[in-house]
Amino acid sequence: MKASHIETGETSKISGPAAGINRGIAVLDVILRLVAIASTLASAVVMATSDQQLQFFTQVAIFNVEYGDFSTLRYFVVINSIACAYFALSIPLAIMHIARSAAKQSRALLIIMDMVTLGLLMSAASAAAAILFLAHNGNNSANWNSICNQFTDFCHRASASLIGSFAAIVILLLLIFMSTAALARS
Amino acid sequence: MKASHIETGETSKISGPAAGINRGIAVLDVILRLVAIASTLASAVVMATSDQQLQFFTQVAIFNVEYGDFSTLRYFVVINSIACAYFALSIPLAIMHIARSAAKQSRALLIIMDMVTLGLLMSAASAAAAILFLAHNGNNSANWNSICNQFTDFCHRASASLIGSFAAIVILLLLIFMSTAALARS
Repeated sequence: MKASHIETGETSKISGPAAGINRGIAVLDVILRLVAIASTLASAVVMATSDQQLQFFTQVAIFNVEYGDFSTLRYFVVINSIACAYFALSIPLAIMHIARSAAKQSRALLIIMDMVTLGLLMSAASAAAAILFLAHNGNNSANWNSICNQFTDFCHRASASLIGSFAAIVILLLLIFMSTAALARS
Repeated sequence: MKASHIETGETSKISGPAAGINRGIAVLDVILRLVAIASTLASAVVMATSDQQLQFFTQVAIFNVEYGDFSTLRYFVVINSIACAYFALSIPLAIMHIARSAAKQSRALLIIMDMVTLGLLMSAASAAAAILFLAHNGNNSANWNSICNQFTDFCHRASASLIGSFAAIVILLLLIFMSTAALARS
């Protein structure tokens, strides 16, 4: 395993309470990553299944709106899927930190990868929120009308899917905070 | 000074090449923060001054569009101003790291504050980008028309203001990467 190779020669320089705290943080780290997998997966699935068809029988036209009509919402689904996969892949490294509480390089690696994921999730969730805000409220200056009066179901599902994404963002902030504290202590 | 108090008792545990590298990183850190101040300030100013008036003499109506019409773009200006102030305030701490290359707690503090700023800037820039993408391309499903055909100047200025914000994001990623590497090394 590459990660264990990186840590070769880094025997535990800390012991006693500090090592115990770092081990506790490592366990919490793994649990939070499991929660983040669930929340990003839920976000991606709920958004990807949000569509709604309106049929007006007075006309021949069928109006349909789905997440795929908005490139921003497609981006949201893609980024949440990537984040979900990343959380799953990062768990082995997080588990390794339970055993090796003094690991430095691998912890720094995890902080940087977490940070990149945070940036991606933040951009996807904020862009989707901006679009859904427009869908709810419209904009008079641009003459864009609210579509949520007609497509209520679509708007509800799409807005609900943001929750999982923002939950994962909060978890990532916590994870980076904990890892940085552990790195400063080791 | 609070920061120097935090570091009390932390004498330089590293010496030679590692200390030299950390000192070099600390100097680069300060320079990058100065660049980030300029780019976020430019973003905020360019966005805040983007407005355009269209006069149709065939009608009495005067059409006007400005950044303040879009709450997302107002948010963009506020966040860029906050980020600019943060970069300015963080410089003293960054300068301290030039002298104290083994500082750990204050470096960890800077990583966490940089990360929060990264999250805020990422959300503001992405949300603004999503809205400007709509302004450029419109959306058929929602029946939102492109407004950039009429408000060309507004769209150009607002889109240009994104550059400074994304430049600051790249700088923040670099800063966090360098600080984390320095923390793992010290």
